[in-house]
Amino acid sequence: MSRYFSHRYDRLEPYVPGEQPQDRKYLKLNTNESPFPPSPKAIQRAAEAAGGLNLYSDPTCRKIREALADHYGIPMDRVTVTNGSDEGLYFAFSAWCDEAHPVMFPDITYGFYPVYAEKLNIPYRQIPVRDDLSIDPEPYLHNEAMVVIANPNAPTGLTIPQNAIEALAERNPDHIVVIDEAYVDFGGESAVKLTCRYPNLVVIGTLSKSRSLAGGRLGYMIADPSLIADIETLRYSTNPYNVNSMTIAAGVGVLEDEAYTRRNCACIADNREALKETLRKLGFSSTDSKSNFIFVKHPALPGAMLYEKLKARGILVRHFKTPRIADYSRITIGTAAQMEALVAAVQEILKEAV
Amino acid sequence: MSRYFSHRYDRLEPYVPGEQPQDRKYLKLNTNESPFPPSPKAIQRAAEAAGGLNLYSDPTCRKIREALADHYGIPMDRVTVTNGSDEGLYFAFSAWCDEAHPVMFPDITYGFYPVYAEKLNIPYRQIPVRDDLSIDPEPYLHNEAMVVIANPNAPTGLTIPQNAIEALAERNPDHIVVIDEAYVDFGGESAVKLTCRYPNLVVIGTLSKSRSLAGGRLGYMIADPSLIADIETLRYSTNPYNVNSMTIAAGVGVLEDEAYTRRNCACIADNREALKETLRKLGFSSTDSKSNFIFVKHPALPGAMLYEKLKARGILVRHFKTPRIADYSRITIGTAAQMEALVAAVQEILKEAV
Repeated sequence: MSRYFSHRYDRLEPYVPGEQPQDRKYLKLNTNESPFPPSPKAIQRAAEAAGGLNLYSDPTCRKIREALADHYGIPMDRVTVTNGSDEGLYFAFSAWCDEAHPVMFPDITYGFYPVYAEKLNIPYRQIPVRDDLSIDPEPYLHNEAMVVIANPNAPTGLTIPQNAIEALAERNPDHIVVIDEAYVDFGGESAVKLTCRYPNLVVIGTLSKSRSLAGGRLGYMIADPSLIADIETLRYSTNPYNVNSMTIAAGVGVLEDEAYTRRNCACIADNREALKETLRKLGFSSTDSKSNFIFVKHPALPGAMLYEKLKARGILVRHFKTPRIADYSRITIGTAAQMEALVAAVQEILKEAV
Repeated sequence: MSRYFSHRYDRLEPYVPGEQPQDRKYLKLNTNESPFPPSPKAIQRAAEAAGGLNLYSDPTCRKIREALADHYGIPMDRVTVTNGSDEGLYFAFSAWCDEAHPVMFPDITYGFYPVYAEKLNIPYRQIPVRDDLSIDPEPYLHNEAMVVIANPNAPTGLTIPQNAIEALAERNPDHIVVIDEAYVDFGGESAVKLTCRYPNLVVIGTLSKSRSLAGGRLGYMIADPSLIADIETLRYSTNPYNVNSMTIAAGVGVLEDEAYTRRNCACIADNREALKETLRKLGFSSTDSKSNFIFVKHPALPGAMLYEKLKARGILVRHFKTPRIADYSRITIGTAAQMEALVAAVQEILKEAV
């Protein structure tokens, strides 16, 4: 940090993303990436767009907004796109919270939420999840704050039902309710339709996970047109060309190939349930994750130890030192072959440890 | 704007980018894009990267930072990359200014600077350029503020000498001096080497213009490692995967093909000088632009009128309603054939108008 750095950031602790080692080839089960390449249509359209990079991308991002609007059956003025859903979340915190307008979210959730709040000097409350790590919607119903809920939640994979989301939106008419649906396509239910009924409800999504575009950075926000207009004001005040042409093209391509996405999501869901069952037989317990990862613990194998021993065997999983979940490991669901390799390594480790 | 939008932004007027019409095919001379496609190496590497988009981009952006460090002959810890140079400028305002730490820049310059200041609640002073539209460095030498200077400046294309930049850095040791070099490759001189001598000097660049990657969004910042660390803190507190994999690959590709870039820049410089001379014979005066655009006016043809009449003929140029420069037009330099089409249209318009 330099002596010129604004004191605004004195308390700021940046987010720590999952390791992205460039030195050695790991089996990466630590950042919830898809094991499947993008749809051939996405690859082809992105490659075509590369030839025209001398021209700016369309700042209105019309083609991808149209494709998303068609996909969800909503008008285009209810959609905007962002440089990954992280940018969308950051815009949400920037637009609808400030020093006088706090935010609340679960204590166990995506680790970027408190970082955004700190960065923007927004007061925030972290509401404890239940002992089983599920989200109790009740405490969010009586508060004077924006609510941010990941559904499914990370790193637990647990969902909250649509009627709970409706209640959140209905009982907080003077505050925004943000539902972060990064992982919804693997077994959750989307609240996009509800955004047409609740003018304070915002859904944030991404093409990173179920649509295999993590490296392309394409997130989206769906909400009442007046809320989308707020985000457009921020976008045009910071970086109007926030989404590049190749990524717009890749996004359009993958949305033309829904069968591919559905097939991949079904495969991940099958592999997830199979892995849960296999690990259960090895003594693990797990949350009822509906996402492309599982969240597991073993009575004889602390999370930190499993992480280290898997890493030594060339397999990366995610371990959080956070209280309440330090015993757990978050493991991304990959192909059947990848899951077999993981199970074999876990069996070896258990033999050593137990 | 919604009723939920933070009052932080009550005075905010978003930036208005040059038109990017999607309806009709125009000869686009309004947003300073390159008329040349990206280097074949850039296209090839970007297309290859598309196949691996299921994995996140490298958040450390090592390959492109290495390529830029090699290009400039500096260590890699003096470089970071951004989602276009607009994001870099926004980071600079965010990092080194705040409510108590103002910024100053010319009154005639890139229109985004005051928008960033307003967005971030930073007090700012706009220092009048001289009557000939050149920047007088003197007023910047005695002030308690960050200094931001585009060199060459936009929309005038005028440069300031390196010794003026040295003086700015030397005389403002307690404040950051940012040099925005978006257009430097067309005839300016880069201050990158000076950043090794002045720990408060920051150079911001882009691969959008001279390297034909506008649609890819790739900017960079070069400065003392402690300043780069500040920016990394902001990047990891907002969007660590801010540059996508395809763009990183395209950037590496274009930097492998410097001969292509040099040839294109030389061609643009030749076409610029030829166009200045042709328009001079038609009664225009122009600034001594060293950029990939010219800034011209005609005694009988107000800027707004020239803009409208060219647009009616399918040619877009940029006109600013800003006081002091409302008579001018900013015209992007294209290929020789494009410049001929422009001149033919201007001749027609002059016949009608005069």
